[in-house]
Amino acid sequence: MQANKKRVRMGMVGGGEGAFIGAVHRIAAALDQEIELVAGCFSRDPENTRRTGAALGLDAARCYPDYQALFAGEAALPAEERMEFVSVVTPNNSHYPIAAAALDRGFHVLCDKPLVVSLAEARALEKKVEETGLLFCVSYNYSGNAMVKEARHLIRSGALGPIRKVMVEYLQEFLSYPYEKEGNKQALWRVDPGQAGLGGTLGDCGSHALHLLEYLIGEEVAELSADKAVYMPGRVLDEDVNLLLRLKGGGKGTMTVSQIAVGHENDLSIRVYGAHGSIQWRQEDPNYLVHCEFGKPKKTLSRGNAYCSADAAGVTRIPTGHPEGYLEAFATVYRAFAVAVAQRRAGALPATEGPDYPGIGAGVRGVLFIAKAIESAQNNGAWTALV
Amino acid sequence: MQANKKRVRMGMVGGGEGAFIGAVHRIAAALDQEIELVAGCFSRDPENTRRTGAALGLDAARCYPDYQALFAGEAALPAEERMEFVSVVTPNNSHYPIAAAALDRGFHVLCDKPLVVSLAEARALEKKVEETGLLFCVSYNYSGNAMVKEARHLIRSGALGPIRKVMVEYLQEFLSYPYEKEGNKQALWRVDPGQAGLGGTLGDCGSHALHLLEYLIGEEVAELSADKAVYMPGRVLDEDVNLLLRLKGGGKGTMTVSQIAVGHENDLSIRVYGAHGSIQWRQEDPNYLVHCEFGKPKKTLSRGNAYCSADAAGVTRIPTGHPEGYLEAFATVYRAFAVAVAQRRAGALPATEGPDYPGIGAGVRGVLFIAKAIESAQNNGAWTALV
Amino acid sequence: MQANKKRVRMGMVGGGEGAFIGAVHRIAAALDQEIELVAGCFSRDPENTRRTGAALGLDAARCYPDYQALFAGEAALPAEERMEFVSVVTPNNSHYPIAAAALDRGFHVLCDKPLVVSLAEARALEKKVEETGLLFCVSYNYSGNAMVKEARHLIRSGALGPIRKVMVEYLQEFLSYPYEKEGNKQALWRVDPGQAGLGGTLGDCGSHALHLLEYLIGEEVAELSADKAVYMPGRVLDEDVNLLLRLKGGGKGTMTVSQIAVGHENDLSIRVYGAHGSIQWRQEDPNYLVHCEFGKPKKTLSRGNAYCSADAAGVTRIPTGHPEGYLEAFATVYRAFAVAVAQRRAGALPATEGPDYPGIGAGVRGVLFIAKAIESAQNNGAWTALV
Amino acid sequence: MQANKKRVRMGMVGGGEGAFIGAVHRIAAALDQEIELVAGCFSRDPENTRRTGAALGLDAARCYPDYQALFAGEAALPAEERMEFVSVVTPNNSHYPIAAAALDRGFHVLCDKPLVVSLAEARALEKKVEETGLLFCVSYNYSGNAMVKEARHLIRSGALGPIRKVMVEYLQEFLSYPYEKEGNKQALWRVDPGQAGLGGTLGDCGSHALHLLEYLIGEEVAELSADKAVYMPGRVLDEDVNLLLRLKGGGKGTMTVSQIAVGHENDLSIRVYGAHGSIQWRQEDPNYLVHCEFGKPKKTLSRGNAYCSADAAGVTRIPTGHPEGYLEAFATVYRAFAVAVAQRRAGALPATEGPDYPGIGAGVRGVLFIAKAIESAQNNGAWTALV
Repeated sequence: MQANKKRVRMGMVGGGEGAFIGAVHRIAAALDQEIELVAGCFSRDPENTRRTGAALGLDAARCYPDYQALFAGEAALPAEERMEFVSVVTPNNSHYPIAAAALDRGFHVLCDKPLVVSLAEARALEKKVEETGLLFCVSYNYSGNAMVKEARHLIRSGALGPIRKVMVEYLQEFLSYPYEKEGNKQALWRVDPGQAGLGGTLGDCGSHALHLLEYLIGEEVAELSADKAVYMPGRVLDEDVNLLLRLKGGGKGTMTVSQIAVGHENDLSIRVYGAHGSIQWRQEDPNYLVHCEFGKPKKTLSRGNAYCSADAAGVTRIPTGHPEGYLEAFATVYRAFAVAVAQRRAGALPATEGPDYPGIGAGVRGVLFIAKAIESAQNNGAWTALV
Repeated sequence: MQANKKRVRMGMVGGGEGAFIGAVHRIAAALDQEIELVAGCFSRDPENTRRTGAALGLDAARCYPDYQALFAGEAALPAEERMEFVSVVTPNNSHYPIAAAALDRGFHVLCDKPLVVSLAEARALEKKVEETGLLFCVSYNYSGNAMVKEARHLIRSGALGPIRKVMVEYLQEFLSYPYEKEGNKQALWRVDPGQAGLGGTLGDCGSHALHLLEYLIGEEVAELSADKAVYMPGRVLDEDVNLLLRLKGGGKGTMTVSQIAVGHENDLSIRVYGAHGSIQWRQEDPNYLVHCEFGKPKKTLSRGNAYCSADAAGVTRIPTGHPEGYLEAFATVYRAFAVAVAQRRAGALPATEGPDYPGIGAGVRGVLFIAKAIESAQNNGAWTALV
Repeated sequence: MQANKKRVRMGMVGGGEGAFIGAVHRIAAALDQEIELVAGCFSRDPENTRRTGAALGLDAARCYPDYQALFAGEAALPAEERMEFVSVVTPNNSHYPIAAAALDRGFHVLCDKPLVVSLAEARALEKKVEETGLLFCVSYNYSGNAMVKEARHLIRSGALGPIRKVMVEYLQEFLSYPYEKEGNKQALWRVDPGQAGLGGTLGDCGSHALHLLEYLIGEEVAELSADKAVYMPGRVLDEDVNLLLRLKGGGKGTMTVSQIAVGHENDLSIRVYGAHGSIQWRQEDPNYLVHCEFGKPKKTLSRGNAYCSADAAGVTRIPTGHPEGYLEAFATVYRAFAVAVAQRRAGALPATEGPDYPGIGAGVRGVLFIAKAIESAQNNGAWTALV
Repeated sequence: MQANKKRVRMGMVGGGEGAFIGAVHRIAAALDQEIELVAGCFSRDPENTRRTGAALGLDAARCYPDYQALFAGEAALPAEERMEFVSVVTPNNSHYPIAAAALDRGFHVLCDKPLVVSLAEARALEKKVEETGLLFCVSYNYSGNAMVKEARHLIRSGALGPIRKVMVEYLQEFLSYPYEKEGNKQALWRVDPGQAGLGGTLGDCGSHALHLLEYLIGEEVAELSADKAVYMPGRVLDEDVNLLLRLKGGGKGTMTVSQIAVGHENDLSIRVYGAHGSIQWRQEDPNYLVHCEFGKPKKTLSRGNAYCSADAAGVTRIPTGHPEGYLEAFATVYRAFAVAVAQRRAGALPATEGPDYPGIGAGVRGVLFIAKAIESAQNNGAWTALV
């Protein structure tokens, strides 16, 4: 039973011992004290689930051996007790069946990215969300950063003028080493097309990069030209992809995503250039936003100041100079989704996506991006429309 | 009642509407999901307490009109239900009576810094902690940063050689504007000697700076020479203090603390130079540690890498490149204290302080520092021993 | 007459009042005190030449009305007095006739980049250099930086392993404003295909970028795919070009060059990733080189340290921490060329290019790059070989 | 004989093989092509002087065995041929006799810092400069940086408001190693009180730091409190000094100078805080100036932009983004002095100091600073007036 009735009740699939992103989701959910984890199936191994649940202080009866049991068991509980939404944090290939089953049982869903492993699955899931009318969130966590909101505000306000050039990078060094040969769980599923899907770094990094770009500029990528590479023996999924972009509004750009870029840890950055100004933001230094205006000194905006927009201020927890990081941005997505779930519980009809919570559409778009980048690369970089 | 029995139960005094640090403490306590806020007296205004408690989803019966009622009410609850420790997040002048009352009622205490407003209070509280045998933590949150632990590890391991020079800065611009004249709560109590105590920026910034320095180098400041300034009309407490330091081991250094340093937000930084190497760490960019060795390229260590020490790894939640910030470091202090409280609950006798939780001794030392810096400044910078 | 007989005697074509790069070349030539400017034709306007020469303290008799007169006049002087090489710093379209005429008269040539405005001219000039046996240098000044040499040394020594990924950027904001409409000389010729040649930013920035890349990695770009843009009304030459690259050794990469990237001043940077390590260097912060090795802390190498290679040390004038900049790197190219000219004067046969002086081959390659990038862009980004 | 009659003719004392700063002065003098080195006595070893002169292409007859011979020999040459000023770049203890002898022979003098080794010498030299009416420059080269001029302009224009706080650092690691035991010439004289004078790092670094501070803020340090340290066995001069400062206008500050600060190369930096704004400048990154205004985003000003003041623009050679460095700033001091010498040659009476050339008064003040810092340190940090 839950003491704090104000909180939204969450279940989780995935995130057992040996996983990475599950613990991140749990902290993100806990941070703002508006969500309570009440149930879970943390692993395909029931013993792992049991240990994980115990370590988290969960009621053993709500640690289920498989996701079907989770959904059935929770659905059988009284409405004021059962979980209200499920967080899906498993390898990519199981997102579809789990999310679909949750929706079928009437649970709202927050799903890790990339949404699913094929365009067909993406569209099927989109249809199911529409049909059930349930809430669905894709955890593009980087959009939760306050200074990303600030950049988006500047761009929407016209401060940069028409967008001419974008540069998006998402560079990691993680897969420069064949960790999968040592049994590393994170590496194993990421290099396995059966679990990761069509894309390697395109799925892991590229889907984030595309979302951040389109979220920021409020404009879609019209078409892309991609060149992908695999260097490590035994791997088949892309480790490194370079792309040229053309925006719907006429601007152009580059994107590069890599998991073999030695020296980069989790280096997602974006630069947007308009006719009059530009912005630069970097995930590893997320509390700052560089804003340049032609002919003026470079400005560095810092989270938490009075000059920041309401969009940024609304997701700011602590004063300027007190750095918020990855978990806080992640928590912003959770909080926005929890607010929507609570509104629904109260009988309202919240929007199915919002500035702080990316919806099913953004999830579908990420899968489309992966599929089209692969298609372009297979056609020697032919320009390929993102439709 | 609390659902998750694994969690340590916390109460809070202070942190109502209009306060800053209380919400920080609540996030810090929630982040690692090992602590549950169950009771509180959030303001001297019972209505504020009621609203704050409701917003937090607390049981109204456990939102008390004053701290005496809080301690009495909780003490009257069954042991498995009542709060186990209280977090004291009020202005400095009330730390002593509240903490003393909590100890008298048998509650462990986590107290914000500076510990109290006079050396006499500090020593009385230290005595009471010893007599009661209860656990006491002072929230010097900056020591919770992973890369501070890494620096401390390097220094302890001898990587720098004997310490020759230290430079500590804690610079803010906050009080460059007379916010107290506009009724800003944060400013009002900070510039009021009746609430803040002897020190202005010495209390707010200086006590952190001293703790960080001594924690890092594992060596005490032997004596100091201070020059303090007040620029804004109507203020009496120090706004800006420059200090020369002499360490017990023979090294020397500077410290500067200010709340009128325009352009600095919360800029706590430390540099330590030994015979062979040096380190630099900066709170606003906390995931990195610069380590220099004479005659070699500068190295930038990044939190979360395999090369980091066990001390740093033990307080690292997420991988390298995914920035942790202010709240995470704060949560590390809370978690360490919660672990000790849970051990005590289980009948063990945990240490009364530790690398991750600063004890009453560190709190006393902070007050001593403030008192001696004021004394030196009043004696035109006479060298004054920190004893 | 020249007092200091040790110095190599230089003439100059271009660089009169209103020009930019001519003064840069003169400082670069003077800095190391091994070259003396003795003659010139600084403008098509003889009066400008006269004034410029007078301001420089030149003998009025050696300030010539046109380049033909310069070459004829100097050729007629005694061997120990006449200029030994000519520096050509005019708009691109006149490089070919001037350089060819100088070679025909027996003068060595240092020519600004891009070498000439068409592949046909480039190959004709290359042939003439071979036939005359004279020395020819193209002022790819960025290769003169000490830390570029250090990076090249690291790569040649195998420290990075096989090259997998390169990222080259050369971003300026200069042409975000239609300066040519205000009669700005720098802008006027740069946006005029008649003077600038095939490429706009490809010529100004791209030729530097390609040279820096190939110089650093010691490997050629095999093919490229380009997408170019023109945004400002009335312009026809590329303002912004994004490229995908494939290296002969199997690595891949991106290049982006722009003169409408608001917020960038002269932002040439390069990143090279190998199997084991990577380097990053940025022209606006040229005294440092970032070197990463997988699994180790990031290292920042600083010019002038004992750990630097002989290649870097050989072009280092002042100790570490005393920044050398753009002019010093430029002077390194001049000095290397002057040394070769002095060796030739002394009867030796110096190499026709070297690590510190880029020869005609590098000049041809730059023109080839411009031509092929334009060709690819005109073919909607078709992969185009750089041959 | 000199070909270029426009140039000012310079002689040099010091700067032979094994020296450092002499070559720097020669580049600084050559860079702007307005000065010609025509004579010298580069070492107390005539053979060293002969070799150095030959390497520089000087007339052997003007390479003199001692400074007395230099002054006598040059004085005997025709006025249009003989050197016009002498650059004194010897160890500190010989500055006085050489400069005095030069003045006595009627030569203008540019002298390296610190001016001389005692206050008595400083005042005697000041008197001689006044009596002879000759021009005298002290090469405080850091004041030659464009962005230092920009900062000075901002402060003079009142952009910062009344100055409240200054922080000056000049940190090097050079003497962390006992180079003097290996015969290193630079180290040998610097640690020898007989050659270096009263101060060690106070002379090398401190005199620059004081000049930069007073130059920037246009206000004098009223009094100081100093604590000095010597760590390396066998040394007697200060290696590291920490100081508290009080300004005439009521502001306060810190200064720290060190040559044993491992990890710092030539790290001179200054921060100035006023009531409304602040600036930060750092010599190792000299093309930028950080300017903060309370409540606004941090601005980074970059040399060479149209928004820069005339003071900065006047010493800017190349466009923004093309870094100028240490030598360029040094050359600015030389150029300003050469302009004054040329004006005097032409019969004018130029000012005896100026924004771009520090005069004898600044030299005296540097020596006063060293003497008073030593005095304060010997009196256990007693506040000591700078008069």
